[in-house]
Amino acid sequence: MPDAAAAHQTVVVERSLFEKNDDLAGRNRQRFRAARLLTLNFLSAPGSGKTTLIERTAVALAGRRRVGVIVGDLATDNDAARLRAAGVPVVQITTGTVCHLDADMVARAADQLDLTALDILIIENVGNLVCPADFDLGEDLRVVLLSVTEGEDKPLKYPPAFHSADIVVVTKTDLAEAAGFAREQALLNLRRVSHHAEIFEVSARTGQGMTAWTDYLAGLRGNQAT
Amino acid sequence: MPDAAAAHQTVVVERSLFEKNDDLAGRNRQRFRAARLLTLNFLSAPGSGKTTLIERTAVALAGRRRVGVIVGDLATDNDAARLRAAGVPVVQITTGTVCHLDADMVARAADQLDLTALDILIIENVGNLVCPADFDLGEDLRVVLLSVTEGEDKPLKYPPAFHSADIVVVTKTDLAEAAGFAREQALLNLRRVSHHAEIFEVSARTGQGMTAWTDYLAGLRGNQAT
Repeated sequence: MPDAAAAHQTVVVERSLFEKNDDLAGRNRQRFRAARLLTLNFLSAPGSGKTTLIERTAVALAGRRRVGVIVGDLATDNDAARLRAAGVPVVQITTGTVCHLDADMVARAADQLDLTALDILIIENVGNLVCPADFDLGEDLRVVLLSVTEGEDKPLKYPPAFHSADIVVVTKTDLAEAAGFAREQALLNLRRVSHHAEIFEVSARTGQGMTAWTDYLAGLRGNQAT
Repeated sequence: MPDAAAAHQTVVVERSLFEKNDDLAGRNRQRFRAARLLTLNFLSAPGSGKTTLIERTAVALAGRRRVGVIVGDLATDNDAARLRAAGVPVVQITTGTVCHLDADMVARAADQLDLTALDILIIENVGNLVCPADFDLGEDLRVVLLSVTEGEDKPLKYPPAFHSADIVVVTKTDLAEAAGFAREQALLNLRRVSHHAEIFEVSARTGQGMTAWTDYLAGLRGNQAT
């Protein structure tokens, strides 16, 4: 296949895939809203602390909001096992070599949850700050994590993910000093890229900042979120 | 387009793209070896410390090996500026929304370097533990970084990248205690997935482990590397 034809065909196939995903995401969104769910799509680099934050959030909201989780990974069900051990209903999606979740994977996973028994559905995406940004899953809000150990420049270097964020959670704040994290510069960079995002700063390990974060979530409703 | 036809077409286009990349990577490899270069492809999650490690490595090798760098990012030339400030010849590739470097991008960037004036060419890939694993760039050796702050489970959760590693560098060891890094478990996981990899543990910030790492690199030759 000549290069130009291959490139053209790639673009056409990609557009077809994105359009199909957007259709399915729209259907997911209708379904989740009909179930009066608040749905959150968590994006971050590998090792930013998504699973720990979700676990501690679900535990902190216990008695106020019923949280269920759909979790995506290339391999292993470690994250699902951790969340299940914390008493959270969870479905694991194993993507193999696929670098992101898509709306179809989420629809199938949601079939395995009793949505009427939940108030908040958290989708933990594959650890990847690039590809998941392109895929609407039908969420109400997109939550992007920035670990203090990753450095203050990451919002500038990964603009699609941070630009698409409705909420940014700066994680592992207990390591900020040890990591030499330049907090003011990080917040400046976030304000440049994540224009409309609410920003929280937490340490899931020490609990610092967790009350403000979980109170905020408890105050949101699926139908009011956007 | 019906789903099955779209899926089939996607597979065909992907295969065509991978085959084309492999051809170009083969040409890069010939070219780099003809120039008697040792070429290293650095892969990691965002914020694992690729740029800092490369900078300190180049400085430590000064007078023994001449290091040049090709660096890939979605946006900004921050990394290139940091490396240039350290006196390292560097070419920045800005990928826009593309989640990995490919062999063609590297070939074009290499045109902007005087390869005959280098002994070691380091390619710093886009920060992403998934997609770059699929793209041969024509390197002699693939170097995958694991930051202690990312957690000991990452080799199990990102098998394609860690399985493809010739060398694994555990980075930010000065933060291991603060981050609660389970070193023995991490090494066990690495041995399960990165079967043939040499493993180094370094802190580019404190210099811990850097001598063993840079002495190892100084002892390698491009033509002997694989």
